[in-house]
Amino acid sequence: MRVGKTWALKGFALGPMTLRPFAGERLMAVRVEAPAGARAPAHSHPHEQMTLVVSGRLRFRVGEEWREVGPMEVVHIPPGMEHEAEVLEEAVFFDLFHPVREDFLRRVEEG
Amino acid sequence: MRVGKTWALKGFALGPMTLRPFAGERLMAVRVEAPAGARAPAHSHPHEQMTLVVSGRLRFRVGEEWREVGPMEVVHIPPGMEHEAEVLEEAVFFDLFHPVREDFLRRVEEG
Repeated sequence: MRVGKTWALKGFALGPMTLRPFAGERLMAVRVEAPAGARAPAHSHPHEQMTLVVSGRLRFRVGEEWREVGPMEVVHIPPGMEHEAEVLEEAVFFDLFHPVREDFLRRVEEG
Repeated sequence: MRVGKTWALKGFALGPMTLRPFAGERLMAVRVEAPAGARAPAHSHPHEQMTLVVSGRLRFRVGEEWREVGPMEVVHIPPGMEHEAEVLEEAVFFDLFHPVREDFLRRVEEG
């Protein structure tokens, strides 16, 4: 049985953010800890994504639309859809992916 | 752009628990609100699952093993693996699935 204490999962730095992946077979949850001002520049990937905010505030663009989200709000990002985000207030959130972001697992291995 | 306020998503009752699904294409996050003493009896499904605890405490069995989990812990349940759970302290958690639990969407429609 596999249980992860998400705050203690091995992570990697992405700019000022720390990403801590927990991978299943075709499903992945990535805990992200991000200070105010952190940004994920516009990008897309074939993986379907949801972002579930635990604490803090983010501003998201998915496709053409910008929206602000806070605690216990979830954003859906369809596969291949361009998106970006900016952290307005120090945040902890979970990026959920299908399938697994193998690139994130490689980043963890590289330390 | 689809954003869900998870506490306000349309839900359905499963015993004493309220389940509020947010479905993507092949990825689903279900907010569950459960009082102490609520139980999910032993079951399995072809969907891969993770359960991410936000608050409260649960006791999980996955396969042969029992484990207790609390806030910010995540449990992995492989596709087809028998599992059950008991809520030890009133809890809010998210069940994450791949693919979408269509049976949950039908339950919401049925009201």
